[in-house]
Amino acid sequence: MQLVAIDWGTSSLRGALLDARGKPLEERSHPRGILSVPAGQFPDVLQELFGDWLLQPDTRCLISGMAGSKQGWVEAPYCPCPAGADEVGRAIAHIEPGRIAIVPGLCDMQREVPDVMRGEEVQIFGAMALTGSRDGLFVLPGTHSKWATVRQGRVTGFRTFMTGEFYALLAQHSILGRTLDAAAPLDEATFLQGVTQSDNGQSLLHNAFGARTLGLFDRLQAGELASYLSGLLIGEELRTQSTHAGQDIVLIGAPALGERYALALRSTGATVRTLGSEATWAGLHALSRSIFTPRNDA
Amino acid sequence: MQLVAIDWGTSSLRGALLDARGKPLEERSHPRGILSVPAGQFPDVLQELFGDWLLQPDTRCLISGMAGSKQGWVEAPYCPCPAGADEVGRAIAHIEPGRIAIVPGLCDMQREVPDVMRGEEVQIFGAMALTGSRDGLFVLPGTHSKWATVRQGRVTGFRTFMTGEFYALLAQHSILGRTLDAAAPLDEATFLQGVTQSDNGQSLLHNAFGARTLGLFDRLQAGELASYLSGLLIGEELRTQSTHAGQDIVLIGAPALGERYALALRSTGATVRTLGSEATWAGLHALSRSIFTPRNDA
Repeated sequence: MQLVAIDWGTSSLRGALLDARGKPLEERSHPRGILSVPAGQFPDVLQELFGDWLLQPDTRCLISGMAGSKQGWVEAPYCPCPAGADEVGRAIAHIEPGRIAIVPGLCDMQREVPDVMRGEEVQIFGAMALTGSRDGLFVLPGTHSKWATVRQGRVTGFRTFMTGEFYALLAQHSILGRTLDAAAPLDEATFLQGVTQSDNGQSLLHNAFGARTLGLFDRLQAGELASYLSGLLIGEELRTQSTHAGQDIVLIGAPALGERYALALRSTGATVRTLGSEATWAGLHALSRSIFTPRNDA
Repeated sequence: MQLVAIDWGTSSLRGALLDARGKPLEERSHPRGILSVPAGQFPDVLQELFGDWLLQPDTRCLISGMAGSKQGWVEAPYCPCPAGADEVGRAIAHIEPGRIAIVPGLCDMQREVPDVMRGEEVQIFGAMALTGSRDGLFVLPGTHSKWATVRQGRVTGFRTFMTGEFYALLAQHSILGRTLDAAAPLDEATFLQGVTQSDNGQSLLHNAFGARTLGLFDRLQAGELASYLSGLLIGEELRTQSTHAGQDIVLIGAPALGERYALALRSTGATVRTLGSEATWAGLHALSRSIFTPRNDA
């Protein structure tokens, strides 16, 4: 049995054709996020982009991400934490029963303010399958970073941080954007200077203004200011988590961003293992086996 | 002697004609901030907007704000803290000696990362003149809020918070803007809920995402979300300052924003006195007396 594994996000999607063992035979990316798909057109887009992979009658298709949101193909209501692959598998939304299905996201309703994820839960399950680690802290950097605690193979709780979105807002739309060169390559020393500065007990609201004054007084150049701001933001995200010295962290994400988080986390003494898109494929593959394998429930 | 007092900002300016005692005889606002004035055109714009007030030969003109920045009329370099009216008066930039002058801003170089203000120093001097308070904490809410400590009539240090700019970025350009009604009137209870939430030891990067999930789960309506986000941000700004119980704070700013800060500060037990634009005129009037009065230095 082959699996068409799809991570269908807001602004883009990625798909992979996996063999019976979960090995990717081919991968594709398209700028066809759910916001670009008119209501009712999801089956057509799936056919258009992956129809050739779906020709074999025993091929299955499992989709994660925003395709399961209210604005997506079919709403797959959030599965409440604590949740492992079993709970998520039972909450799956079937499009064509036994053939095409959508993975629900997770919600954490254990605090006063709820939290949600869609797609990252699959990456966490995949990372567990790939690393063998069923306990620990899983960090997924991004527009909305996720920090998830895993115990005995289940996500017990998590928090979202709007770090990537704040960086984009500040670099593109704020007063800081006037003097900062967002296209400059990472300057590690200046990045770590920002990470350190974020931990001064002052708010990000104050520290961010430093990315202006350090430029005003020629203490940092335009390219360095981008690294400094990035360090301030990622440092702020790390600051609120309990101490990382000696902690074992699984980091899942795109290489460029993962590198920054790994730098910042290692500067706190944490041990970091990093995974990329393979975590998504491994997660969808692991879930697919319980979802599409007929059970003989007595 | 009459004084034309002008607060010349980035995107707009305000002017007042003050009598010899500092009483405003007339006030004017124009959307002619420094960014709208081509280099070399500042004298013409001053003449165009306030020429009638300047006809009397003994009328003086004192300008504060971004007109003294690199992008303004004449650069008036920042006056370093600690600084009172005397230090600022000596650092004035004369346009027409004895008749037209620009007030420099302040810089605080006492920490690793410098801080700056332009225009707020005049409001602080004005607030001292109006309240008689020469010691305490002066808070100026705005796009870039300022918290200044005053001892014996001198600003000993200050910090900037990009609170107003962060609110605008999040409400207009972030994912939160999709579900939040920024035009809704203030809901005090929800605002204070945000103030309280901001003090949970988690980062603004996390708490801001709550303004999305509380909407997703129908716990707050679109109009309430704006008040909640405003409370989160202003609460975050207050959080980093030392405890306010029993503290006497002078709050200087526009009434609508001042009301929010007063609400948040009073919820911490602080005593708040509020002042508006009169602080600017009082500050420029107080400074003008030392600047334009010939001294008999022996």
